[in-house]
Amino acid sequence: MFRVDLNCDLGESFGQYKLGEQEEILNYITSANVACGFHAGDPTVMRETVKMAIAKGVKIGAHPGLPDLNGFGRRPMQITPQEGYDMVVYQIGALQGFLSTCGEKMQHVKPHGALYNMAAKDQALSEAIAQAVYDVSPELVLFGLAGSELTKAGEKLGLQTVHEVFSDRTYQADGSLTSRTQSDALVTDEEQSVNQVVTMVKEGYIESQQQTKVLLRADTVCIHGDGVHALAFAKYIRNTLEKNNINVQAFHV
Amino acid sequence: MFRVDLNCDLGESFGQYKLGEQEEILNYITSANVACGFHAGDPTVMRETVKMAIAKGVKIGAHPGLPDLNGFGRRPMQITPQEGYDMVVYQIGALQGFLSTCGEKMQHVKPHGALYNMAAKDQALSEAIAQAVYDVSPELVLFGLAGSELTKAGEKLGLQTVHEVFSDRTYQADGSLTSRTQSDALVTDEEQSVNQVVTMVKEGYIESQQQTKVLLRADTVCIHGDGVHALAFAKYIRNTLEKNNINVQAFHV
Amino acid sequence: MFRVDLNCDLGESFGQYKLGEQEEILNYITSANVACGFHAGDPTVMRETVKMAIAKGVKIGAHPGLPDLNGFGRRPMQITPQEGYDMVVYQIGALQGFLSTCGEKMQHVKPHGALYNMAAKDQALSEAIAQAVYDVSPELVLFGLAGSELTKAGEKLGLQTVHEVFSDRTYQADGSLTSRTQSDALVTDEEQSVNQVVTMVKEGYIESQQQTKVLLRADTVCIHGDGVHALAFAKYIRNTLEKNNINVQAFHV
Amino acid sequence: MFRVDLNCDLGESFGQYKLGEQEEILNYITSANVACGFHAGDPTVMRETVKMAIAKGVKIGAHPGLPDLNGFGRRPMQITPQEGYDMVVYQIGALQGFLSTCGEKMQHVKPHGALYNMAAKDQALSEAIAQAVYDVSPELVLFGLAGSELTKAGEKLGLQTVHEVFSDRTYQADGSLTSRTQSDALVTDEEQSVNQVVTMVKEGYIESQQQTKVLLRADTVCIHGDGVHALAFAKYIRNTLEKNNINVQAFHV
Repeated sequence: MFRVDLNCDLGESFGQYKLGEQEEILNYITSANVACGFHAGDPTVMRETVKMAIAKGVKIGAHPGLPDLNGFGRRPMQITPQEGYDMVVYQIGALQGFLSTCGEKMQHVKPHGALYNMAAKDQALSEAIAQAVYDVSPELVLFGLAGSELTKAGEKLGLQTVHEVFSDRTYQADGSLTSRTQSDALVTDEEQSVNQVVTMVKEGYIESQQQTKVLLRADTVCIHGDGVHALAFAKYIRNTLEKNNINVQAFHV
Repeated sequence: MFRVDLNCDLGESFGQYKLGEQEEILNYITSANVACGFHAGDPTVMRETVKMAIAKGVKIGAHPGLPDLNGFGRRPMQITPQEGYDMVVYQIGALQGFLSTCGEKMQHVKPHGALYNMAAKDQALSEAIAQAVYDVSPELVLFGLAGSELTKAGEKLGLQTVHEVFSDRTYQADGSLTSRTQSDALVTDEEQSVNQVVTMVKEGYIESQQQTKVLLRADTVCIHGDGVHALAFAKYIRNTLEKNNINVQAFHV
Repeated sequence: MFRVDLNCDLGESFGQYKLGEQEEILNYITSANVACGFHAGDPTVMRETVKMAIAKGVKIGAHPGLPDLNGFGRRPMQITPQEGYDMVVYQIGALQGFLSTCGEKMQHVKPHGALYNMAAKDQALSEAIAQAVYDVSPELVLFGLAGSELTKAGEKLGLQTVHEVFSDRTYQADGSLTSRTQSDALVTDEEQSVNQVVTMVKEGYIESQQQTKVLLRADTVCIHGDGVHALAFAKYIRNTLEKNNINVQAFHV
Repeated sequence: MFRVDLNCDLGESFGQYKLGEQEEILNYITSANVACGFHAGDPTVMRETVKMAIAKGVKIGAHPGLPDLNGFGRRPMQITPQEGYDMVVYQIGALQGFLSTCGEKMQHVKPHGALYNMAAKDQALSEAIAQAVYDVSPELVLFGLAGSELTKAGEKLGLQTVHEVFSDRTYQADGSLTSRTQSDALVTDEEQSVNQVVTMVKEGYIESQQQTKVLLRADTVCIHGDGVHALAFAKYIRNTLEKNNINVQAFHV
C-alpha cells in the first residue's frame, strides 16, 4: 500500500492582514506548517490556527522562517549556522506553547521560504537546523526538500526525516527544482501536476526537464493555501491520490 | 526557618546592544527572569542566558513583555485579555524551546514592565495571564506584585503563586508601590533597603509612607542587574539576608 | 458656494499583505492619507501609493501612527508628548522622501487610529503633534477630529487646520463620536449617512444622539477604502455632495 | 593645499540601548552618518543626534541600512534594486524630517554595513541607491567605498560623489578591502594607520598586501565611534592630519 502526506503552509495572517483560506484547506491536507511570527503569523493567529487544525484532525508542525516580515521570509539573508539554530529553537518553542495549551504534540518542523531553500544547499546551515530540531525534541519529524542537504542532515542525526516534493514545480537532472527564473519552472496543468506526484509516490522517480529519470522519495507533497485555485486543486489532488490507491495520511498517526 | 528567593531580570541584550552584568549577578540570585524577545532579548541572547543560568544553578523563568522593543516594554498598551494570553503563551513557549535543548524545566513566569504593572491592577488581564501560564503548564510558578490582582488570579487557578517585593521602593498604605513620579518613591539607602526586606520576610509587613503597617507576603525580592551598584548591592543583600538566618533559595529545588 | 474635501486612508498594504482597493477609490476622493510604515505600509507600498495618487490628481498627506504593526496602530500606547513629536516628524519625513522623488509637495498630516483618538482628547500630545507638523513645515495642513484638542492645538500654532467629520458615525451632545462599544455608534443607512454630511457642510451642525444640535465644522469627510461597499459608497457620497452643490476639493489646489 | 573629511557613524542607540560616545567624537569629525531606524537608531535618538551634530557644527548625512535591527544591518540580504531604492528614499526622508525641524540641510548619504558592502560590488544595486539619492535631491553628496560600483554609479548620475577610505583596514591589489576573515585585515598600529591615510590623501595611493601601489582617491576617512580607543584615536588622527598640512573639513561648507 502506498502512502503520502499532504502539507500546506498555514497561519500566515498577521494582525489586520488576512492571507489564505485556512479553514477550507484543512479539509484536504494531513499536515499543517504553522508560521511562527518571524516571516508571518502572530500569537493570536497561531492560537487560532492551532485550534482549527486540531479540530480538523490535521497534524501540526512549526514553520520557522527568517526574521523578515516585510519580505515574507523569502529574501535570503546571510546568517550563521548558530543564528539559524537559535531562530529555529525559538520558533519551535513559541508554537509548542500553543500546542501545550491544547495538550497536543507537535508533529514536525519545516523551514520556510528562503531558510528552506538556503538549507537545501548549505550543509552547515542544515546541520544547525536539524540539530535545533533534535535538541528541542528527538521525536520531531524534519521536513526538507527531497534529496537535499537538509534531509541528509536530519538522517545523519537519526531524526525521522521526510522528503518533500512539489506538484507544481519541474525538476532538473540533479534533482533540484527548476529555478523560478526559468520559463519552464512551473507545472500549470493540474492533471500533469497530480500525475507527476502519483509517479513519484508509486515509482520513486520524476522525469527531469532533461528527460532523465531522477530517483526521488516522495513522503509529503506541498499544497498551496492561497491563490484562486488552491482549494479546488487541494480537493482534486486528494481525490486523485486516493483513487490511485495512495493513502493520504500524516506521520504521527 | 525563614526563606526568600532573589530574582533578577536577565537576557535583556539585543543583537549588538549589551545590557547588564549577567554573568556576575548570577552568583547572588536564585531565580532569573529571562526576556523573550518582545521588549528585549533575541534568540541568541536567550540561548546564552539560559546556558549561563544553568551553569550557575540559578532557576529560570520566562519574562514576557509587551511587543515594544523601542520602549523596552515599559509603555502601557491597551491590549485585550486575549491578546495578553496569546503574548504570554508565545513567549513562555519560545523560552521553553531553549530550556528543552538543555533538558531543563522552566520554574516560573514573571510579566515584565508595563505588562506587570497593568496586570497588578487589572483583574481581567491578570486572569488571562494566569490562565496562559496554567494552560502551558500547571506546574509553572507565577510571580506577581505582592497582594496584587495577578497573585489573586494565580491563586484562584491553583497555580503556585509567588508574592514579589521590592527592596528599593516605598509602599503606600494600600500596599501599592509609591509611584515613581513621587519624590519618595525610591529607597536609596542600602541598609534601609535590606532592613525593609528582612522585616517583610520575617515579620510579614512593611511600614507604609503613611506610617501604617501593611501586611505583605515576601516570597521573592527583585534585584536589579544593571546600574553601577547592582553587583555590590546584590552581594550585600544576599549576605545580609543569610546573616539574618533567612535561607535564600528558589522554588523548584 | 459650499465645499468639502473627501479623504481616505491609503497605502495600508505591507509586503505580501494587501489591503484596500487603492486604485479605484482614488477616483472619488480628493485627499489621500498615506501610511508611513509604523502601523501599516512599507517603503515599496509608499512609493507605489504616492505615484498612484499623483497620477489621479489626489492630494497627499502623511498618516503617522503608533509603532504597532501587529495592532494596526489601533491600540492606545502611553507615549510621552516628546515621543509623539519624534514619531510624527520621522513619518512625515519618510513620506516626504517619496514625494520629493516625484517633485510633489505634501498637503497635509492626519494622525492615524489610536494616535488620532488619543490626540483628540489630550492637549499635551496634540500640542506636540501640531508642533511636529509645524516644525517640519508651517505650510502643511493639519487634519484633526472636528472641535478636538488636535484642531485647537493646530489653530493655536497658526497651522491651516482642517476639521474632520465622519459620515458613518453618530455624535454625542458634547461633539464627541459615540463610542464604538455603544450599539448606536454607527450610521449604517447610506442615505442617512450622506444627509448627515450635507447638513454638517451646509448648516454647520449635527444632531446628536441626545437630539441636541451640535455645532461642527466639516472641512473634510473620512471615507473608508476597504470593506465590501467602500467603492460604491465613495461614488455615492461624491455624487450626492455634488448634486447638493457642494464642491468636492482638496486644500492645496 | 590638501583636504580630507573625517566621518563617523552616529545615532546608533535604540531605546534603552546606548551605543557610542556621541558627544565627544563630534569634537573631532566633520561629517556624521546618522542611523535612520532600520539597522539602528529610533526617532528620539535621531532628533537628539541631529541637534548635537548641529550644535558642534558637524555636517549631517543619512546612513540608511538594511531592515535588520537584530543583525545591526550587517547581514547581507538579497534585495532587489527597487527595494534598495525604496529603503534609501524612506530613510533619507525620515532623517530629513528632523533636519527640517532645525532648518538644516542634509549634506550626504552613506549606506551602512551590508548595504554598503553589497553596493560596492553590485552595479544594479548601486545604480538604484545612487538614483534614490539623486531623486530625493541632486544636491546630496554620495559617500561610497573608494573606486567601487557605488562611486561609479554616483559619478555617472552627476552626483557629487565622495570616495571613502579606511584607516584601520588593509587593501588588496584590486583596491578592495582585505576581508575580515583574513588575519591581516586590520591595521592595529595607530601610527601606521594614520600614515596610510596621509599617503592616500597626499599621494593618492595605498600599498596593497601584495606590495603593489593601488591608486585611490581619499576624500573622506571613516572613524569609529565606539570601542575603547575610539576617542583617543579620533583626536590623534585629526591632529596628525592637520600637522601634515591636510585641511580637515566637510563638503558643504
